[in-house]
Amino acid sequence: MFAVVITRPGGPEVLELREVPQPQPGPDEVLVRVRASALNRADLLQRQGRYPAPPGVPPDIPGMEFAGEVAALGENVCEWQPGDRVFGLVAGGAHAEYLLAHRQTLARIPEQFDWTAAGAIPEAFITAHDALVTQAGLQPGERVLIHAVASGVGLAATQLVRALEAHPYGTTRTAEKLERTRPFGLTDGAAIRDPATELAPMAERWAEGRGFNIVLDLVGGPYCAPSIAALALKGRILLVGTVAGGRAELDLRQVMGKRLRIMGTVLRARPLEEKIAVMAAFSRDVLPLVAQGKVQPVIDSVFPIAGIREAHERLESNATFGKVALIF
Amino acid sequence: MFAVVITRPGGPEVLELREVPQPQPGPDEVLVRVRASALNRADLLQRQGRYPAPPGVPPDIPGMEFAGEVAALGENVCEWQPGDRVFGLVAGGAHAEYLLAHRQTLARIPEQFDWTAAGAIPEAFITAHDALVTQAGLQPGERVLIHAVASGVGLAATQLVRALEAHPYGTTRTAEKLERTRPFGLTDGAAIRDPATELAPMAERWAEGRGFNIVLDLVGGPYCAPSIAALALKGRILLVGTVAGGRAELDLRQVMGKRLRIMGTVLRARPLEEKIAVMAAFSRDVLPLVAQGKVQPVIDSVFPIAGIREAHERLESNATFGKVALIF
Repeated sequence: MFAVVITRPGGPEVLELREVPQPQPGPDEVLVRVRASALNRADLLQRQGRYPAPPGVPPDIPGMEFAGEVAALGENVCEWQPGDRVFGLVAGGAHAEYLLAHRQTLARIPEQFDWTAAGAIPEAFITAHDALVTQAGLQPGERVLIHAVASGVGLAATQLVRALEAHPYGTTRTAEKLERTRPFGLTDGAAIRDPATELAPMAERWAEGRGFNIVLDLVGGPYCAPSIAALALKGRILLVGTVAGGRAELDLRQVMGKRLRIMGTVLRARPLEEKIAVMAAFSRDVLPLVAQGKVQPVIDSVFPIAGIREAHERLESNATFGKVALIF
Repeated sequence: MFAVVITRPGGPEVLELREVPQPQPGPDEVLVRVRASALNRADLLQRQGRYPAPPGVPPDIPGMEFAGEVAALGENVCEWQPGDRVFGLVAGGAHAEYLLAHRQTLARIPEQFDWTAAGAIPEAFITAHDALVTQAGLQPGERVLIHAVASGVGLAATQLVRALEAHPYGTTRTAEKLERTRPFGLTDGAAIRDPATELAPMAERWAEGRGFNIVLDLVGGPYCAPSIAALALKGRILLVGTVAGGRAELDLRQVMGKRLRIMGTVLRARPLEEKIAVMAAFSRDVLPLVAQGKVQPVIDSVFPIAGIREAHERLESNATFGKVALIF
């Protein structure tokens, strides 16, 4: 089979399509023929040598999400048939013609979605749902601030917050992205450059001085401290990304006085039983919203897998709105 | 009635015993004749003008916990009788001859405890139990690091962790305090002066490289960052005090990668319904342990209420081991 291979740490030029051995399913595994995938920041970091694949995952084939057809079954697999259209997450190896997934980490693709749309759903919606609902305990009526709101996860989060009858607010870097985000349900938002000075007055205006109940921070660095300052009593901040930096100063008395929770999260390194639980929550809570069209993937651009280098360049440009999709 | 009154912000010399009007119970309130209390850091801060009483609480009478006799009942109070021995928390006003408490925020004092012992129980055990069990979700077998382990809350936490079949570790400032703490169930501990350099190697040795599941941080400042670094995967740190400082640098990638939770907590400012829930959890989970002698208050020193200035000086000395108790 062919796969995208990281030949050495570096820029997009280190990626090559190569022939590699096709994996064989273990007793509880499904062999999936990948039809579509999408790019994530984790793929860029792995290519740069900054985010190695966890044990048990192909070390040199990137790709965290996929949509495809069931091609073969391990002996214990009873819930899937060859030809079933499935999607899900893996900790690596999705940018390949075939991959292996545990039978309980797959979900059935709703009929109306083509491969490209299906491949752009799992990472964004699972990350957003797990962070907002499972971990932060989002309740109807709450105010949620989403940084990098025009990213794949940001747009999924915006729609989920709205679908769950809460109020999404967002920040992004350009006015153009902000305007494109509004139709997805944003209560309000702003294009900001300097969160240290710009976030506080906006938060004050949006939340009428009451603060945000949840911040979904996909950016980190200078966004973190002013986001914590903008939280309401018993507010929660989910640290999901650190593209703007990995350090923040913490005001301990603020965290105590407002009884805040600062929660770090990452999906990739979780053990199997937790991934099964995450997928069960997605299937139960999000898939019906997807199937009914209440939330939808947002696709910035589509590249054939042979254009993987250009796809990486596109995501690295920070000009994207939604997901960079890959078709096979 | 008499009460300790903060005449102006300042040192212990601003405290005076004065005659003040006796409060009258509302429909759901109990008038308690206070027989004993204890001192808390919050009392020192309030005296200094740095921690004002929340609305609805006497602004100039300190005192966060009490043991006493029911003296009079509001018209809706059916669960208590005059003469009942009760203890509990208030947001202020406990260093007075009488106080008002909501009928659902009281617990019955186990028979074997005299007033002095009873008055030293509520704040330490409720704070420790709420933080460790209700918020951090302590499980049997977990490793818990407790800073300021020789304080009232620290000694209560040590005993609770041990009673719940988990493993308490602790830091304190002197070898003498550490040795006095060991008999209360400490698995191991250390006297440290510089957490930035001393905490990591000790944590490595104690937890055999696996990290702590929970840190109960009663100290803050320079203890915070190395404590977070010493947490295990899915570890939780509870920020309960900032006597050593209110700032810490946060390594966001560490919080994400280990999926940590940083939780701030404070009891005093919670709304009534949460205080009722806290007291119900204390009555259900902790009171049986207290009644059976599996955990016990640790009393550093006992002062008559007329010696309130000396009691403040004693707690401010940082030489205490356990609680500074007050008798009326």
